[in-house]
Amino acid sequence: MNFTDMLRAATAQHGSLLCVGLDPEPARFPAGMQGDARKIYDFCAAVVDATADLVCAFKPQIAYFAAHGAEEQLERLMQHMRSNAPQVPVILDAKRGDIGATAEQYAKEAFERYGADAVTLSPFMGFDSIAPYLAYRGKGAFLLCRTSNPGGDDLQNQRLASVAGQPLLYEHLASLAQGPWNRNGQLGLVVGATYPQEIERVRSLAPTLPLLIPGVGAQGGDAAAAVRAGLRSDAPIIVNSSRAILYAGDGADFAGAARAQALRMRALLQAARR
Amino acid sequence: MNFTDMLRAATAQHGSLLCVGLDPEPARFPAGMQGDARKIYDFCAAVVDATADLVCAFKPQIAYFAAHGAEEQLERLMQHMRSNAPQVPVILDAKRGDIGATAEQYAKEAFERYGADAVTLSPFMGFDSIAPYLAYRGKGAFLLCRTSNPGGDDLQNQRLASVAGQPLLYEHLASLAQGPWNRNGQLGLVVGATYPQEIERVRSLAPTLPLLIPGVGAQGGDAAAAVRAGLRSDAPIIVNSSRAILYAGDGADFAGAARAQALRMRALLQAARR
Repeated sequence: MNFTDMLRAATAQHGSLLCVGLDPEPARFPAGMQGDARKIYDFCAAVVDATADLVCAFKPQIAYFAAHGAEEQLERLMQHMRSNAPQVPVILDAKRGDIGATAEQYAKEAFERYGADAVTLSPFMGFDSIAPYLAYRGKGAFLLCRTSNPGGDDLQNQRLASVAGQPLLYEHLASLAQGPWNRNGQLGLVVGATYPQEIERVRSLAPTLPLLIPGVGAQGGDAAAAVRAGLRSDAPIIVNSSRAILYAGDGADFAGAARAQALRMRALLQAARR
Repeated sequence: MNFTDMLRAATAQHGSLLCVGLDPEPARFPAGMQGDARKIYDFCAAVVDATADLVCAFKPQIAYFAAHGAEEQLERLMQHMRSNAPQVPVILDAKRGDIGATAEQYAKEAFERYGADAVTLSPFMGFDSIAPYLAYRGKGAFLLCRTSNPGGDDLQNQRLASVAGQPLLYEHLASLAQGPWNRNGQLGLVVGATYPQEIERVRSLAPTLPLLIPGVGAQGGDAAAAVRAGLRSDAPIIVNSSRAILYAGDGADFAGAARAQALRMRALLQAARR
């Protein structure tokens, strides 16, 4: 099944707009695992098992594995999700951005080695840095568009003199992704939750693209406002929360605490749909 | 020693502006190794040993290792370069671009796990996606500025209405990197070799930053024109060639063929300095 269909099905089946981000930090693991990078798989797999019926996607962030040389644990985790939660699409958060033969290598890493259903990408090098991923038909690719960190303004919020209508850079990108770049309907956009009016703006320029919205939970964005700004009847959104769920508890029942927090977040997001 | 001093010393000692890019593709390995991803280390180490006295830097591209699950071979290769060519700085070409805690993980990967002297980064998310790397004092960070692929125009070549003087996006970025972003003198810029007039433009806006110039050799840029456009007495440049050197020969003496090609390229670059 292709990524978009998987996403729609999981969203409907689980009544959920929530994506759990898997950003394992051994220093924050519960007692008994704390500080032990060899427990990355165990920690993440426990959270996956505790939340799989509550989410529309999982999103492992590869940096947290790479920093510890834990690629093999990431491979096992991806396999675990395919086996135990086959209905939940997995977005590999890698923000790759390179061209030609190098982009082909990264696409191979994401889709063949790890078996991800979608990947996040940086669009700075332009369309030919995106195209190699689209060669994997049915896989999804979320382009960074408007990020909610303070530095997001540095480039994304610059107004372009050279494009008709003088859009901001992120607005131009949203239009490209909705239009000429979106071969075979594989593209989505990453839009931070911090500024709901910018989610609305992206939605108006990209009326059908899936939006991946990080920045809620520990990062403090307003999840309900993000839903109202981004969700349309035929335009999916995915609201990510990582640390607020992963580290909801620090004891033996950390997975139960993660589930309780995921239930709260799912309900909050569902309430905003009404 | 910090990255900038290492680069200057290697450039002077070896009389070279040449960087050998390590982009291992098992399908292109010589007979006896061909198609065998377990030979990535052997292939790269042989090229390193054959060219170490001819270069100012090495640049492994991490995608070519990650696609094959060859992180452990990359670790060994980095160790090999530190042991056998300690005078040559190593730039890990990763083009990472993420924020906060995630960027810290990527910085840890590049500088602690792999022991790189510098890294390439994508600036799309702004300064706070760069800052975590600068916390490693003495390490270098090359920001993508103007890339020579066709899609490089898509965003980098847009004119900004919102910045004084209406620069192009890549010009604005060059000014930021030369100025407010360049804490502790750690930044450099990646500028493609295809358009020498754009290298000149970047050099005028960033008169002291090291420029990393890919796109010569197999990619066909004009190496001599790039040197004339970018080199100034106190502003280093690094001209990268990957495939033209790595795959200069396809027989048992591939390392000798790589050395011969590196000698030719070094001489071509030196001649352009005069």
